[in-house]
Amino acid sequence: MNLTIRAGRKGDLSEVYKLIEELAIYEKSENELINTIENMEQDGFGPNPAYELIVAEVDKKLVGLALYYYIYSTWKGRSLYLEDLIVTQKYRKQGIGKLLFNKVVEKAKQMKVGRFSWQVLDWNRPAIEFYKNYPTAFDEGWINCTITKKDLEKL
Amino acid sequence: MNLTIRAGRKGDLSEVYKLIEELAIYEKSENELINTIENMEQDGFGPNPAYELIVAEVDKKLVGLALYYYIYSTWKGRSLYLEDLIVTQKYRKQGIGKLLFNKVVEKAKQMKVGRFSWQVLDWNRPAIEFYKNYPTAFDEGWINCTITKKDLEKL
Repeated sequence: MNLTIRAGRKGDLSEVYKLIEELAIYEKSENELINTIENMEQDGFGPNPAYELIVAEVDKKLVGLALYYYIYSTWKGRSLYLEDLIVTQKYRKQGIGKLLFNKVVEKAKQMKVGRFSWQVLDWNRPAIEFYKNYPTAFDEGWINCTITKKDLEKL
Repeated sequence: MNLTIRAGRKGDLSEVYKLIEELAIYEKSENELINTIENMEQDGFGPNPAYELIVAEVDKKLVGLALYYYIYSTWKGRSLYLEDLIVTQKYRKQGIGKLLFNKVVEKAKQMKVGRFSWQVLDWNRPAIEFYKNYPTAFDEGWINCTITKKDLEKL
């Protein structure tokens, strides 16, 4: 397997978007995906990028990604948040997720962040088992709250 | 009650920090608070600020705050995340939280974000009831995962 882990580029975004779609379907939320490749180009590769991207490539085909950005914890200061870690179905269980995750860990250390955090769905056992390989604290006591763009407009 | 809602300033941070301590104690996590006023000065008021701040002042005394920043949802694009909404015990139930929250809603609309989100502890009934006054979607299916700075260094 000719595997490369590298920084994502603008030209990767159409393949990146397919992986995001695959995750949305896995998470039973495909109707939630309203972002577009064009938005992702502007948001990640213009001035003041909103996210950073690491990709996994096998024989020139994108098979996985890690997408992260920086947040602010009032308790811990500047922190890194991993929004998505995706490996396409066919390439799972081959250590690609681990290589991507380790790259994000490396970045978090390099940036000396106060903490590194992410979320996992409570029924996603393979992901939870994977994260147990790291010194991860799991905290189930929080509820995610959201107001959508559409509902914001009514307020 | 002589109440002002305004943007937070660097000079507010020592009072801001006291409110953050008060919330950490309420959330039974006072040992988790390792950030400092000095860090918050650099992080929020230098170049490339990591957060924005709105404060509530009664008779020149800081009694509440909303601290937020921008994140990236792969599903919704650029989004606003409310990290902390705090009103000091003595001034609760007087509509100050609502005024602060409404200011953040205003900001989210102005920035045309894809969504506005935050988290609430599942036992914090007064907060949950408050958020029910808005078109909030509550999602309990997620687990927060964290690796601390100390544990990152061992990886």
